Amino acid sequence: MGRQSDARERLLGAACRLIHSRGYSSIGVAEICVEADVRKGSFYHFFDSKQALTLEVIDAHWAGQRTSWQAILTARAPVEDRLERLFSSQADAQRQTKQSTGVVNGCLLANLALELSNQDETVRTRLRQIFDEQVELVRTALGPTGSPETARAMVAQLEGMVLFAKLGNDPSLLDGVWAQARRLLS
Amino acid sequence: MGRQSDARERLLGAACRLIHSRGYSSIGVAEICVEADVRKGSFYHFFDSKQALTLEVIDAHWAGQRTSWQAILTARAPVEDRLERLFSSQADAQRQTKQSTGVVNGCLLANLALELSNQDETVRTRLRQIFDEQVELVRTALGPTGSPETARAMVAQLEGMVLFAKLGNDPSLLDGVWAQARRLLS
Repeated sequence: MGRQSDARERLLGAACRLIHSRGYSSIGVAEICVEADVRKGSFYHFFDSKQALTLEVIDAHWAGQRTSWQAILTARAPVEDRLERLFSSQADAQRQTKQSTGVVNGCLLANLALELSNQDETVRTRLRQIFDEQVELVRTALGPTGSPETARAMVAQLEGMVLFAKLGNDPSLLDGVWAQARRLLS
Repeated sequence: MGRQSDARERLLGAACRLIHSRGYSSIGVAEICVEADVRKGSFYHFFDSKQALTLEVIDAHWAGQRTSWQAILTARAPVEDRLERLFSSQADAQRQTKQSTGVVNGCLLANLALELSNQDETVRTRLRQIFDEQVELVRTALGPTGSPETARAMVAQLEGMVLFAKLGNDPSLLDGVWAQARRLLS
């Protein structure tokens, strides 16, 4: 067993990897503890439940992603360049995961949204807040002429194409996305 | 217990309802049998496994959806009208499910694609074939000027917006989709 001093962080990291790869329902607390190298008895010292851990995984994932989205979307560049960079950053992320793990995991937030929306109101509410934040970040980038509907369509386009990349286990399906998605601005 | 003569059909119907609502991993054979009013011992008389049943659920669902998509996309009407009808038919389907069950279930095929792509190669392969068929149906409707990339972007837009409708449990989020999606044709 590893050191207990960072057991909480290891549990969070293990849960993030497992849930991103295989979803929520197919993963148990015991497997998370094995992956984290933490005694199962310690789990409930740190988290009340798998749901509580999952909410922290979601928040940690979005905190990192939000920092990246904000940096990209508020850069000094024409709005189309910023949005193109946002789309290519998603392609890069899927490509890196494929290179390191052999599989395209898709978007953690969309995976959980489709799996859990009808099963867990707490998770659903948190994910809805996050997607609303994503849409608002894009809308702000679009400037005075950008509507919430157009911003939502951009995020929907991204999520739909990430679904195809995951289904095909092929991150290159995301390479040409911007050429299509930019038409949503016309 | 119900009549055994239609037990197979009842198992298929029950599995479709349960899996569409709550996904694959959280549903067990026992629950499917209770929902279908079929003895658990009979399950393996009809299906080798939950996976085998799920593949039949997928095929039956797509067979119905394909008939609808083909009818809409080959109708005598301008292509934009046909595509608008395709999009509004998806909104109608989500609205009907919400009215009858209280929840927006989203797209069965996308739900399973995100949940199972990294866990079940047989399901992944089947779903990929189906989404390829969807893209090809749209591409054919677009005519000589339609590219596979544009057709894929249309399906991605639909799936991304269905995700938002499921996350918000609000089918009305799909009402304005066509106003955005039609720009993908420009």
